[in-house]
Amino acid sequence: MALVDVAPATLRRAELHASVADPVLDTMNFLNEITHRYPQAVSFAPGRPYDGFFDVEEIFRHIRRYLDHLVEGGATAGEVRDALFQYGPTGGQIRELVADSLREDENIDVRPEAVVVTVGCQEALFLTLRALLARPEDSLLVSSPCYVGVTGAARLLGVEPTSVEESRDGFRCADLDAALVAERQRGRRPRAFYVVPDHSNPSGSTMSVEERHALLDLAAREDFLILEDSPYRLVSPGRQLPTLKALDRNRRVVHLGSYAKTLFPGARVGFAIADQVVVDEDGGQSLLADELTKIKSMVTVNTSPLSQAAVAGMLLAADGRVSQLNTRTAAYYGDAMRAILQRLDECFPEPERSALGVRWNEPAGGFFLTLDVPFAADNAALVRSAENNGVIWTPMSYFYPQGGGERSLRLSVSYLTQADIAEGIARLARFITSEAARAR
Amino acid sequence: MALVDVAPATLRRAELHASVADPVLDTMNFLNEITHRYPQAVSFAPGRPYDGFFDVEEIFRHIRRYLDHLVEGGATAGEVRDALFQYGPTGGQIRELVADSLREDENIDVRPEAVVVTVGCQEALFLTLRALLARPEDSLLVSSPCYVGVTGAARLLGVEPTSVEESRDGFRCADLDAALVAERQRGRRPRAFYVVPDHSNPSGSTMSVEERHALLDLAAREDFLILEDSPYRLVSPGRQLPTLKALDRNRRVVHLGSYAKTLFPGARVGFAIADQVVVDEDGGQSLLADELTKIKSMVTVNTSPLSQAAVAGMLLAADGRVSQLNTRTAAYYGDAMRAILQRLDECFPEPERSALGVRWNEPAGGFFLTLDVPFAADNAALVRSAENNGVIWTPMSYFYPQGGGERSLRLSVSYLTQADIAEGIARLARFITSEAARAR
Repeated sequence: MALVDVAPATLRRAELHASVADPVLDTMNFLNEITHRYPQAVSFAPGRPYDGFFDVEEIFRHIRRYLDHLVEGGATAGEVRDALFQYGPTGGQIRELVADSLREDENIDVRPEAVVVTVGCQEALFLTLRALLARPEDSLLVSSPCYVGVTGAARLLGVEPTSVEESRDGFRCADLDAALVAERQRGRRPRAFYVVPDHSNPSGSTMSVEERHALLDLAAREDFLILEDSPYRLVSPGRQLPTLKALDRNRRVVHLGSYAKTLFPGARVGFAIADQVVVDEDGGQSLLADELTKIKSMVTVNTSPLSQAAVAGMLLAADGRVSQLNTRTAAYYGDAMRAILQRLDECFPEPERSALGVRWNEPAGGFFLTLDVPFAADNAALVRSAENNGVIWTPMSYFYPQGGGERSLRLSVSYLTQADIAEGIARLARFITSEAARAR
Repeated sequence: MALVDVAPATLRRAELHASVADPVLDTMNFLNEITHRYPQAVSFAPGRPYDGFFDVEEIFRHIRRYLDHLVEGGATAGEVRDALFQYGPTGGQIRELVADSLREDENIDVRPEAVVVTVGCQEALFLTLRALLARPEDSLLVSSPCYVGVTGAARLLGVEPTSVEESRDGFRCADLDAALVAERQRGRRPRAFYVVPDHSNPSGSTMSVEERHALLDLAAREDFLILEDSPYRLVSPGRQLPTLKALDRNRRVVHLGSYAKTLFPGARVGFAIADQVVVDEDGGQSLLADELTKIKSMVTVNTSPLSQAAVAGMLLAADGRVSQLNTRTAAYYGDAMRAILQRLDECFPEPERSALGVRWNEPAGGFFLTLDVPFAADNAALVRSAENNGVIWTPMSYFYPQGGGERSLRLSVSYLTQADIAEGIARLARFITSEAARAR
């Protein structure tokens, strides 16, 4: 047996699944590297929630509140213990609380059976894509620029999403309609359209009510599902437009839910609302949620009951009103957004702004805005920005699966202080001015 | 726009991904249904851990212990808070503790960078399969009968695993060798072999040390990776054989780790040890763990920091010795296994046993054993067993991806009391006797 090769196994990356070479990952790694290399820079890159309102002791109180709730509901000591320690139901053990909360906060009225509790919104998205993208011709359309998690999840399944590019004013249904026609002409079958209708990541745009209705009509007419991802609504100030799911009269919307921004990211608890009816050949019926649950059993088995307990305790604390838990947070983010817009106005007054070719949108909420600049906002520009001006941002081109956004950047306002914002925008203005001069 | 179709969306199951029609899911659903329909039956079906040693207050202590550990390591209050509330690193924030524990308990010596913390062992398995099964010709071999989670995860990726059937004495390397040849003759490229070497689920068999060495040599010679899943070792009484990973001198083993049986299922924390070197075309190197982490970022983003904190607190409580935390549990399961074997002996004495054609293996640990019976142990037989005799078991045929095990059943001993076991085996004996008479 000594003749056996004892060299360590070496794998060639080209032999691994293509998803490990997803360009999105390289760009994200690059961004992290820059952030580490320039720790003194003000960074408008990460979209992570502000953490100043988190309180460690609260976690313990939330978990206890949920356990007390079980006791009040008649659970024995053994049942309470198992609700925390054992495997739970694959579809989730807090589905009723989630459904109640959606009714309170979002006017979304679904039975608990239509809810699947997932390991964050990302798993909800992944499960939904796996269920719907079954054949080589099945296609996924995405509003673009788009969240990298959706392209990444699709590529894990060997699917390259088709971009439907936003206009300067945001998503337009007519563009999707045209894309559907083009897809069919290529022999593809559009199955789903992914969109963040409110304060989108990355652009910050919000879909109008008229476009929402038009999109729902289009989905019914052209027979596809809408995958609605809307994590920033309840942490945004003021009244929000109705979700697509609240307007959905014919079950065209799978609503992908996240508690990462509204409760806390560390729970890794999200959900899918999938009330679509699935029929099999002999007339048997189930909900799409049941089918997602089956897939989930092969990906993560179930979502941590410990995490679900913490989330449930929070929902119980506010009688399901997640919005109520977030009044302070929404005000904080609203102030940050107003501050960044004001600083941009001050740093780029008219007519200099137009002469320079700089412009930005003015989101009413969310974490992000888009800034158009008169030069290529690429990785090389990012390095100069960090090195020479001490300010970091995200190239918008990262968010276009099929190219685009070369002269735009994404600014995130979610966790910066007012002082950081003032200093960061001043630095950004100096960077932009020098780049514009350089480009001339 | 009133002309639009307003009928609710109805999806045809045949148009969803084939994984939702995985026969494994139907059989598991059937088993659950039977369990619910006959609540008075003694059930040898579920493989869930015994919960009598769980204590709710412990959870809080474990989380606090981890947070204290961070403070002792110099973390600020903000860092401690964020370790619980924020997104954490995709590869996991307790990788060092996991690596330390593996060194203490299992003589597995890897750097923390080779560890990926996952949402249970199932996600570790899924990520590894996604990374390795890249091309249509790439194939996965599984020791059979096998855990349904591996066939299910492979089918999500469109891969049908190839069975390598265990002999009565367990896995034989020669059978795998023959299967590899057959795979290559079919134009397929074997990439990995999945096996539970210790107290296997479902059969209860354990691979000898000689077969372990032979398997490692075969993997090196034939250039495939071994996926080692071994969740029952540290909850089994007595000395365990070395893991494949501890014997692995040339990085042929990806070790898939679970804390579901050793700590608690509700954490949903597992891990992969993937220290294989991956080289890209321009000579760049990474570890397979890095590639799994990339894939994870598109499936679940990261594993709940709250769950990781609870697990870390438990590891810290025992200085990494998971085995030490499980002395009582291992004794409990050991007693249960001894009891079931003794009761079987009493209920089926020789020479009646041989005349009847009943036999079973005698696992030294784990949750499961195999019982061969002289009739088809199918769903219809299971219904008769539950209905007429008040005893439930799992048809072994559920665990053969390509057919087999028709006259065997799996008995699980993990959570039954001694009294349940005595009563259950008596009922089972009556059932088997009546079925044998019926079959004649």
